[in-house]
Amino acid sequence: MAKEAKTAITPTRAQDYPEWYQQVIKAAELAENSPVRGCMVIKPWGYSLWENMQGVLDKMFKDTGHRNAYFPLFIPVSYLEKEAEHVEGFAKECAVVTHSRLELKDGKLVPSSPLEEPLIVRPTSETIIGEMYSRWVQSYRDLPILVNQWANVVRWEMRTRLFLRTAEFLWQEGHTAHATKEEAIKETNKMLRVYEDFAQNYMAMPVICGQKTEGEKFPGAVTTYCIEAMMQDRKALQAGTSHFLGQNFAKASNIRYLSENGSQEYAWTTSWGVSTRLIGGLVMTHSDDNGLVLPPRIAPTHIAILPIIRDEASAAEVMQYCKNLQSELSSICYDGKPLRVELDARDIRGGEKAWGWVKKGVPIRLEIGPRDIANNSLFMARRDDGSKQAISRAEFVAKVPEILTQIQNNLFAKALKYRQDNTVKIDTKKDFYDFFTPQNEKKPEIHGGFAMAHFDGSAEVEDMLRQDLKVTVRCIPLEGDGEEGICPFSGRPSKQRVVFAKSY
Amino acid sequence: MAKEAKTAITPTRAQDYPEWYQQVIKAAELAENSPVRGCMVIKPWGYSLWENMQGVLDKMFKDTGHRNAYFPLFIPVSYLEKEAEHVEGFAKECAVVTHSRLELKDGKLVPSSPLEEPLIVRPTSETIIGEMYSRWVQSYRDLPILVNQWANVVRWEMRTRLFLRTAEFLWQEGHTAHATKEEAIKETNKMLRVYEDFAQNYMAMPVICGQKTEGEKFPGAVTTYCIEAMMQDRKALQAGTSHFLGQNFAKASNIRYLSENGSQEYAWTTSWGVSTRLIGGLVMTHSDDNGLVLPPRIAPTHIAILPIIRDEASAAEVMQYCKNLQSELSSICYDGKPLRVELDARDIRGGEKAWGWVKKGVPIRLEIGPRDIANNSLFMARRDDGSKQAISRAEFVAKVPEILTQIQNNLFAKALKYRQDNTVKIDTKKDFYDFFTPQNEKKPEIHGGFAMAHFDGSAEVEDMLRQDLKVTVRCIPLEGDGEEGICPFSGRPSKQRVVFAKSY
Repeated sequence: MAKEAKTAITPTRAQDYPEWYQQVIKAAELAENSPVRGCMVIKPWGYSLWENMQGVLDKMFKDTGHRNAYFPLFIPVSYLEKEAEHVEGFAKECAVVTHSRLELKDGKLVPSSPLEEPLIVRPTSETIIGEMYSRWVQSYRDLPILVNQWANVVRWEMRTRLFLRTAEFLWQEGHTAHATKEEAIKETNKMLRVYEDFAQNYMAMPVICGQKTEGEKFPGAVTTYCIEAMMQDRKALQAGTSHFLGQNFAKASNIRYLSENGSQEYAWTTSWGVSTRLIGGLVMTHSDDNGLVLPPRIAPTHIAILPIIRDEASAAEVMQYCKNLQSELSSICYDGKPLRVELDARDIRGGEKAWGWVKKGVPIRLEIGPRDIANNSLFMARRDDGSKQAISRAEFVAKVPEILTQIQNNLFAKALKYRQDNTVKIDTKKDFYDFFTPQNEKKPEIHGGFAMAHFDGSAEVEDMLRQDLKVTVRCIPLEGDGEEGICPFSGRPSKQRVVFAKSY
Repeated sequence: MAKEAKTAITPTRAQDYPEWYQQVIKAAELAENSPVRGCMVIKPWGYSLWENMQGVLDKMFKDTGHRNAYFPLFIPVSYLEKEAEHVEGFAKECAVVTHSRLELKDGKLVPSSPLEEPLIVRPTSETIIGEMYSRWVQSYRDLPILVNQWANVVRWEMRTRLFLRTAEFLWQEGHTAHATKEEAIKETNKMLRVYEDFAQNYMAMPVICGQKTEGEKFPGAVTTYCIEAMMQDRKALQAGTSHFLGQNFAKASNIRYLSENGSQEYAWTTSWGVSTRLIGGLVMTHSDDNGLVLPPRIAPTHIAILPIIRDEASAAEVMQYCKNLQSELSSICYDGKPLRVELDARDIRGGEKAWGWVKKGVPIRLEIGPRDIANNSLFMARRDDGSKQAISRAEFVAKVPEILTQIQNNLFAKALKYRQDNTVKIDTKKDFYDFFTPQNEKKPEIHGGFAMAHFDGSAEVEDMLRQDLKVTVRCIPLEGDGEEGICPFSGRPSKQRVVFAKSY
């Protein structure tokens, strides 16, 4: 481990944060850009992480009464048009399918067989799912419908970035329909809290639950709720949203039901989603200048065992010892499932091997050579705090679930402290502008963090701050302190402080 | 259960097989057509079945060393062109994306911002994955690559049918790259056997493992292997394929590696896939004139408990008894996991409720009323053989895993017998034509079944039979009897009998 003085990732966060982010993803082999504009390839390590995240979320959805289904990839253009704000929000960047065949012309394949009506690749599925629900719902007995879909969606973004903003991404979208407004609002909030639980307790990523302003809400929603997290460049990441759609989409899609007292009523709907964007948030919450750092509860591998082979003579013994240990550890339960333990027997230099696991973010690395075996001990390196220690095999085996829990909690505590340290109450326009104005022109990404300031709720103030500082209201926190005040930008009254920040 | 004399599905298999198939799917709420041409909606019951199938297959893939990844939905047209047979096979029916924006013109949304190069929605991913592999593979140390993808794909079929042939479908596609031809062939066969295991031991669907003829193989493959199953109309369904691609795609995508002795070599690749088509096969293997019949190992629900409420007085007691039973059964292990038990407390007529579960194919239905409770017994109905009996609660609880295993085995045995009863060795052209010519002109779907006949391997014979009878060689069985003979159509020698059939 002679290299330890240097960092494994170049540049470091301080040198060039955006480039550091790309390099962490590359070094961890999470994903890479593909030759298809804006579309990424999620590599096995990244996909395995996504599978673990999916597994936890899927169980949470089912435990709250939802079932999965699958709806078409394509949406007829006429469906998109049904909801005015919705079409405004999504028509500007979508993949449009216009032909159903390729034909050879002058030695080149060109589109032929034009479609009667163009189709778009779904950017989100409210309209097509609404159409199906209108067929499924006749009476109040058919409600609620509580359905989720795991799917790919496409939004033709101009500037893309691995996980954070890609033309195609993977997500889940829940779509529910209810007989009453109250029930739909309750569902919207319930799912926001599911996301909060997942982000904080599994991803170890602290989030603020809040409501979006009119200017930032989902096109077609009555109210959008969100979870917002602070990244290490102190920008905000919207990590999940839950929308109360009122009767907007029910009216657009004609989802009506016969009520218990015989009247025809429109249903009340919701939708809620999180995506592979969460992986970008995970990277930027915990990673350091040596690469990815993974919270144990969703890590593809909890423990990497590295046999240290010094000579031919002891090689077989070391390998056997490591195999036995792997098998013993794999029978131990952590978080309700067997520990995920990998034995890295690749024939490469020890340093390269160790750094590989550091960069991949595996919570615990064990190095085991003949001397360790003789002492009945292990060399344990923790990824979260970089600590290294010799520990007796028996003690490690007895304590490993506890150590992983410590790592999980430590990552959350560290991230929470970072957010608290970079969140400031601000009461004047000058302080606000200073907070968000970079001190160093060469490092425009360095700025204050989250500003908790009063806000009059007007679009003028939001527009001004967006234009002047690229700062927006990230959310109106649900857990506010209830302190009324004066908006420092307009002098008008404000009901509570809101979260202002730059954002992804 | 007074209706039992009538069938739950109209028409019956004998009356109109194709329509019976659609009605079984409708009655079981597996899926339905969407307003998007050729695209289906997989409803929660159908999707839950797919999730169970995915779970088993995914574990099989991981147990054989594969990992999941995700590749782009879109493929540039120039990639498709790289492999001549491949483009020939897929260009004729694909969704072509030509624009990245919709614009309002004269009150109508029309495509705008044309793409420089059109993209197609993946019909299969050999070309785009090949491109990525060419970047990932440098040396023999990078091989093998053993990756699988769960994804949606699109083939613009003109005539579609739920599950069997839809424009969009869900599938998995494994793509592997190897240093040697032998290793790639071994992989191709290994995955064919994984599919055989899954089809027979989980879906209870007997299959014949075989090789496709030149005329029926995958566009771009050197050899295509398949599993073929017989449906209840005696047609064959290709249920899964595994392709040895030789160096065709490695050359098209330039997947090269530095060998151990320093030379540059092309890799050898394979691909293999099964899709939601399997659900169509499942429906047509086991269902009867009362609806779907599910093999326990993949059924979303193993047991449905129906409380029989005769009066207000006993209602609470019956419900409590059923809840206790549900909880007791849910703690019993079947096939390595807890039993999946549903308690149907809906306030609808008992007959309607019971028929609902019959049509959904749930393996065991329990009906429990005050008299059963008094006798400490249950009324048990088995979906596979329609048997009904009173059984003591204690006996049922003790025997339920065994009963489910019996059901699973019974379904397989019944399907195997059906295939054997409808498979005939044929040695003359006249017998062959008689076998496949419908006896009744009004029922063109009624014909012989599988004909085991000799075949000279020529395209002429295949073309003739396709044209005359719509019959093709389904596969050259891997487990043949080694009996050489004479092709009854050409008089030329034949190495073994092959499977001829009409097919989906």
